[in-house]
Amino acid sequence: MLGNFTYSNPTKLYFGQNALDGLNEELPKYGKNVLLVYGGGSIKKNGIYDKVVKILKDNGKEIFEDAGVMPNPTTEKLKEGIERARKAKADLILAVGGGSVCDYAKAVSISANCDEDAWEKYFIRFEDVSCKIIPVGCILTMVGTGSEMNGGSVITNHEQKLKIGHVFGDNVFPKFSILNPEFTFTLPRYQMISGIYDIMSHILEQYFSGDDDNTSDYIMEGLLRSLIHSANIAVEDPTNYEARSNIMWIATWALNTLVAKGKSTDWMVHMLGQAVGAYTDATHGMTLSAVSIPYYRFIMPFGLKKFARYATNVWNIDPSGKTDEQTADEGLIAMQAWMKKIGLVMNISQFGVTPDMIDGITKSTFVMDGGYKILTSDDIKSVLKASL
Amino acid sequence: MLGNFTYSNPTKLYFGQNALDGLNEELPKYGKNVLLVYGGGSIKKNGIYDKVVKILKDNGKEIFEDAGVMPNPTTEKLKEGIERARKAKADLILAVGGGSVCDYAKAVSISANCDEDAWEKYFIRFEDVSCKIIPVGCILTMVGTGSEMNGGSVITNHEQKLKIGHVFGDNVFPKFSILNPEFTFTLPRYQMISGIYDIMSHILEQYFSGDDDNTSDYIMEGLLRSLIHSANIAVEDPTNYEARSNIMWIATWALNTLVAKGKSTDWMVHMLGQAVGAYTDATHGMTLSAVSIPYYRFIMPFGLKKFARYATNVWNIDPSGKTDEQTADEGLIAMQAWMKKIGLVMNISQFGVTPDMIDGITKSTFVMDGGYKILTSDDIKSVLKASL
Repeated sequence: MLGNFTYSNPTKLYFGQNALDGLNEELPKYGKNVLLVYGGGSIKKNGIYDKVVKILKDNGKEIFEDAGVMPNPTTEKLKEGIERARKAKADLILAVGGGSVCDYAKAVSISANCDEDAWEKYFIRFEDVSCKIIPVGCILTMVGTGSEMNGGSVITNHEQKLKIGHVFGDNVFPKFSILNPEFTFTLPRYQMISGIYDIMSHILEQYFSGDDDNTSDYIMEGLLRSLIHSANIAVEDPTNYEARSNIMWIATWALNTLVAKGKSTDWMVHMLGQAVGAYTDATHGMTLSAVSIPYYRFIMPFGLKKFARYATNVWNIDPSGKTDEQTADEGLIAMQAWMKKIGLVMNISQFGVTPDMIDGITKSTFVMDGGYKILTSDDIKSVLKASL
Repeated sequence: MLGNFTYSNPTKLYFGQNALDGLNEELPKYGKNVLLVYGGGSIKKNGIYDKVVKILKDNGKEIFEDAGVMPNPTTEKLKEGIERARKAKADLILAVGGGSVCDYAKAVSISANCDEDAWEKYFIRFEDVSCKIIPVGCILTMVGTGSEMNGGSVITNHEQKLKIGHVFGDNVFPKFSILNPEFTFTLPRYQMISGIYDIMSHILEQYFSGDDDNTSDYIMEGLLRSLIHSANIAVEDPTNYEARSNIMWIATWALNTLVAKGKSTDWMVHMLGQAVGAYTDATHGMTLSAVSIPYYRFIMPFGLKKFARYATNVWNIDPSGKTDEQTADEGLIAMQAWMKKIGLVMNISQFGVTPDMIDGITKSTFVMDGGYKILTSDDIKSVLKASL
């Protein structure tokens, strides 16, 4: 726990099969106008929409709708949402969906009372929030991004071929989030697995950085072991409540700022994955899985001790009589085999990426400086080619 | 993560060598009158008192003092503190010290605006807080109880020979806590080691309960591994910043409600230790260490699978070719050896407990029902006798 930091997380979580009851506790705290934000309409098929609308009406709320939030929310959609929030004079933005819907709700919440262009202000110039924020609540129906308990928001600009995430301060965190693991049961298998890898990548990208002795690394090893264990159960038995509830809880704690405290972090897999996503609109978690093994193979020599520790503490590789290199290598082999077994996408060519697109994706990749090696443009190309 | 629960933790933490600067951010949020609560005066020797008073004065605060909080705060002292808070018309109670000082500050904060007897209301009848609460901030100088980020408060009634803890809701949590690991450097070795075992016991008493598959158990294994690792460094080198900072951070997360979420918990070691403490006024963490091994040996057969998991995941006991009983047993042997090595008290006779006191201590022991076996009066006697 080196360095100075503050920790504060104002989001209240309601967890479990009765979590939606928490809405009755929260709604009286806010004004009459609620902007209900959701995606493609699956919540209408599985009945969650009706349940939420009933609770809103029972609490005397006026409902304004903003549907059609796409998996990678765009600048165009954001402009539409800002207009809708303004027209509704929204007192609360209630996001019902996965991380994208929650991310989008936060982007609207910090922009509706702002005159400036939200994309330019927040995602290009990375400015702090200077306008009045509309409170946000999230009802999760998909697990992975951790957006339900953090200030993160990722927006895609198709014209500029950029997918950019910004992590805002705790005034942008959802005021409350409702986490009922059963709401994730109807999610297609592909989405579930993608979410699982998104969680894993969040943990790994905070883990693979620094060589200090930090309690956060130990917590992350625990989260990883629990995630692998529960993922193995969930892929066989998607309605296993215990496994799905563990995965939901891990997702939240993987990215609500806790495990990054007092340590450096990497985030290059997200930078690579987001660049691939901006070019292909592929599912977020799958873009991460497709570049991970080539990336980790590339940086392993620069953080060998940590990769050997990872192999032993997470994948139970016995290090006795082996060099760090051998142990670390066996860890990555075990990880790769597990990723294939649960059905993750392992190559970016599966999203339609062709060799001629590598230069463009490389240019769209932001380079972070917290990992074991700062990637050059050639390094990025090399990792992307190995991911094809 | 079975069951329904809410999670909300409003305490803001300032961590690190510059953590005290956080006081300048917090003080403007509160009124002029600050009740400064501390213990025996060690903060005057090590200079922390002067630093805090200077910041209070720089922020234009009127300082009222309440010194002399003892390691196990008593009902008499609590009455005195309530009077002082009333006279000061305190807008903020600032606790500078260890968990006892912070616990005491919370007890005063919920009682000063209350007409009823605080001991009877909160510690005998376990009632919720119904009076206006004075905000509390904590500046930690000793690590262990986790009081800096929870609603717990333990008060001792010498007349009734009772030491009782109550865990209050998040309105009683400190509004902020200041955690500078360097403030703990001058603590005597005995107090440091006692605090380390208090932390360990907090984790173990939440870990050794239930046989469900819960992410919290994996997080706790990570915390335990980090704690053992850093404790080994700290006992050799008490001013090792990295080790002391990890220990400080683990203490906070061991008992700020997170790791108990979605699972049952035990707490019988605390009940036994507190009963011993009420009879002897021994140092809290040492009362826990002195009863732990006999207690765990006693309940091990009823939670064998978890004890075997503990041995493997925390103490690196290789389970191959062994029965769960053998593995679990080797885990407790490793734990006991480590406890002796770092210098913990292993027998209650060292506090002056004699065989004739066993009946009285047994009667003062509250029985909790979350562990692997609900203890009968004879069970308690048997554990206490084995602890002599």
